[in-house]
Amino acid sequence: MLFHVHMEVAIPHDLDPDRRAALVAEEKERALELQRSGVWPHLWRIVGKYSNISVFDVDSGDTLHALLSSLPLFPYMKIEVTPLAIHPSDLKARS
Amino acid sequence: MLFHVHMEVAIPHDLDPDRRAALVAEEKERALELQRSGVWPHLWRIVGKYSNISVFDVDSGDTLHALLSSLPLFPYMKIEVTPLAIHPSDLKARS
Amino acid sequence: MLFHVHMEVAIPHDLDPDRRAALVAEEKERALELQRSGVWPHLWRIVGKYSNISVFDVDSGDTLHALLSSLPLFPYMKIEVTPLAIHPSDLKARS
Amino acid sequence: MLFHVHMEVAIPHDLDPDRRAALVAEEKERALELQRSGVWPHLWRIVGKYSNISVFDVDSGDTLHALLSSLPLFPYMKIEVTPLAIHPSDLKARS
Amino acid sequence: MLFHVHMEVAIPHDLDPDRRAALVAEEKERALELQRSGVWPHLWRIVGKYSNISVFDVDSGDTLHALLSSLPLFPYMKIEVTPLAIHPSDLKARS
Amino acid sequence: MLFHVHMEVAIPHDLDPDRRAALVAEEKERALELQRSGVWPHLWRIVGKYSNISVFDVDSGDTLHALLSSLPLFPYMKIEVTPLAIHPSDLKARS
Amino acid sequence: MLFHVHMEVAIPHDLDPDRRAALVAEEKERALELQRSGVWPHLWRIVGKYSNISVFDVDSGDTLHALLSSLPLFPYMKIEVTPLAIHPSDLKARS
Amino acid sequence: MLFHVHMEVAIPHDLDPDRRAALVAEEKERALELQRSGVWPHLWRIVGKYSNISVFDVDSGDTLHALLSSLPLFPYMKIEVTPLAIHPSDLKARS
Amino acid sequence: MLFHVHMEVAIPHDLDPDRRAALVAEEKERALELQRSGVWPHLWRIVGKYSNISVFDVDSGDTLHALLSSLPLFPYMKIEVTPLAIHPSDLKARS
Amino acid sequence: MLFHVHMEVAIPHDLDPDRRAALVAEEKERALELQRSGVWPHLWRIVGKYSNISVFDVDSGDTLHALLSSLPLFPYMKIEVTPLAIHPSDLKARS
Repeated sequence: MLFHVHMEVAIPHDLDPDRRAALVAEEKERALELQRSGVWPHLWRIVGKYSNISVFDVDSGDTLHALLSSLPLFPYMKIEVTPLAIHPSDLKARS
Repeated sequence: MLFHVHMEVAIPHDLDPDRRAALVAEEKERALELQRSGVWPHLWRIVGKYSNISVFDVDSGDTLHALLSSLPLFPYMKIEVTPLAIHPSDLKARS
Repeated sequence: MLFHVHMEVAIPHDLDPDRRAALVAEEKERALELQRSGVWPHLWRIVGKYSNISVFDVDSGDTLHALLSSLPLFPYMKIEVTPLAIHPSDLKARS
Repeated sequence: MLFHVHMEVAIPHDLDPDRRAALVAEEKERALELQRSGVWPHLWRIVGKYSNISVFDVDSGDTLHALLSSLPLFPYMKIEVTPLAIHPSDLKARS
Repeated sequence: MLFHVHMEVAIPHDLDPDRRAALVAEEKERALELQRSGVWPHLWRIVGKYSNISVFDVDSGDTLHALLSSLPLFPYMKIEVTPLAIHPSDLKARS
Repeated sequence: MLFHVHMEVAIPHDLDPDRRAALVAEEKERALELQRSGVWPHLWRIVGKYSNISVFDVDSGDTLHALLSSLPLFPYMKIEVTPLAIHPSDLKARS
Repeated sequence: MLFHVHMEVAIPHDLDPDRRAALVAEEKERALELQRSGVWPHLWRIVGKYSNISVFDVDSGDTLHALLSSLPLFPYMKIEVTPLAIHPSDLKARS
Repeated sequence: MLFHVHMEVAIPHDLDPDRRAALVAEEKERALELQRSGVWPHLWRIVGKYSNISVFDVDSGDTLHALLSSLPLFPYMKIEVTPLAIHPSDLKARS
Repeated sequence: MLFHVHMEVAIPHDLDPDRRAALVAEEKERALELQRSGVWPHLWRIVGKYSNISVFDVDSGDTLHALLSSLPLFPYMKIEVTPLAIHPSDLKARS
Repeated sequence: MLFHVHMEVAIPHDLDPDRRAALVAEEKERALELQRSGVWPHLWRIVGKYSNISVFDVDSGDTLHALLSSLPLFPYMKIEVTPLAIHPSDLKARS
């Protein structure tokens, strides 16, 4: 099933710069890995913000929480999850 | 370019039922037409709400406003538009 | 999977009283039917409000949306859905 | 009586890591102890957040405040308490 | 136990004036009756508003909901209930 | 005249523990002193929070500000003051 | 003592135009009368809004509520009252 | 001086359609007239909304309020006014 | 022209105490100086808060911004500015 | 296409003063450079705040995000972007 996920990143400004750089690099690796596995079909940057809007395709809320909390930047993110359903006017769902 | 669009529908409860049914049917037709044209690549229902989350792919804000205000339910919707950019960790954008 | 659902009812004060009474009675029937089927394990009234807090146990967001939009009072409710996961300190989940 | 409790945890990022680990372990022990005693019948994780939704069953607000403020992470939590009542359509309450 | 209750009244302006006057008179009678019974020890008007702040002393959330929903103006009020506990610095509670 | 006062305490987590303990002890002494003097007739703890709801009985806003800003924890509190009036349905005010 | 009062007027658009005009005229008369009496020393319009910011000088919250609820437009206004104190840097208060 | 003005239009859905059409036409005429006079240098539509963002150049708040309240749709608009100043990094202001 | 200004002071708790005392003393001097010059006709303390409500009388937004940003505590204040106009029912403005 | 951009600056008070001064100087240089290039046609200060309101003219959201995130103060700004369209009553757009 699909979930709309909004992630807002706020790394504390006084975090050690090396620690910060390592976290950001690890986050990117983990994001690519999850996308390759098929559970993270959409990932967009919000213009002007250190935030993203994503869509996840997972079998349950437990799986989604496990994925999100595995992100290296999870402790520094504010995440909002919105469950999605098929829209009755969705062209793709009708075909 | 891509825009994230959140539409919340609130048709007044005292609107004439026939008018309401006609509007909803016209809205569906228009939504399918726009999707077929390629400008509305994603459309999802938010679980528990008469709302949707969409992604539009248009050449400008003027085009997007023209499309959104052409929707039959436009006068009864609260719409929030968020401009999107390519995310540096987006797998599809890297390939 | 589990979803936390907050429903706030706001029936327009000028709705026909007979229509209102019928809707409320149908809502009760439908709520009991869904609880008997096992998909609605918890239902509580919020003190002082015409609102409830519920927990649903369904296989997907599509199923949950179908259930919620089948409620006779759906057009007059504001619904917020929050996906739940097993808590690592939940005693029941550990046994 | 029943209370709906929403707990959002925000441990300061510059807290000593050993102190943090100790607090989290003590929190888990205390949570299990309270669940075993019967006063904390439901505990769920909110997907994507370091937050939980709980239901407590206690005899008074004084008892609930004593329990909540006994949690090791209490100084780092934002807690919202909502009193619950039996819902007239609750299947369990009718049987 | 004690509950802090904030009631905001919003009677629709197009309600029949006689109905309105009757409701307000009945509300006053019911409020006096509940105060005489001891369950409603404090009742204050908020300056500049058609709102009040009250303290109720009841044995449970179920009792409080029954009392509040028995108020004739209940359908036209927005009510917020906050559970209270004895404050450790309360002079009365220490004596 | 009466004022409803909501105080929310947020002592910075990195304040020196001895300083913190001293402030909390002084706050308690000052609170008891003010209650004995009659200007602070009600003081309740909000369940689950380091907050209180109080009622003050003073002759003016100047007096109230002087009292509130004399509290040792004043620099660490967010305070909201709401002026109260006698409610026309208050049983005590009618006798 | 002084109170800062913010009044936002929202007369329902379907109120009878004659009733509306009468109310507005009566409001103006009452406002001038109260200003002449000295209890309403300041009255400003907020640019772009059907709202005002006022300062009242009264002996108590009871008096202020009586004055505000005597305004003909009171049923159609949202009013926020903020108690004021003398500022320690106020030049006038120091002289 | 310059003011940033955000106008959100919300014409009641049950307003007479002829009255509505007349108001909208008059609004357009008045907007063009004010722009020609030089007091309204910028006017943009917000994508997806029946709202605009404008900049006015007037000599005072009194003048601005007179202009805004002369707009035929003023009774149906929610307006927010923000005063502007020259930015120290504004290229045009430096030349 | 007149502007309503709300200033909320939040000096970081870990600022050097001498620096803090110096800033507060300088702020007072500057506030008195501006009041003497006639541009700051009203200054009130909000009861229970380290905030004030002021009215400024200046010729433009540029002048007001220059004055406000000249306040020694400006970097630690959250300021909201609301432009005012003469109220049609203001007794003083009519005389 | 045009975007309305609101930037609110909040540099941490404990940032090294030299680092702060350097960032502010670099920000000014970059802002001037972008204005000279034509992509940043409007830049205003909001009175009383360390914030600005800007209008950008760029070919896409990707370009805008690249420009905004190139600002030296980007890590310390909260930015809100609103896409704009031509207003049907805009005098300039009609000529």
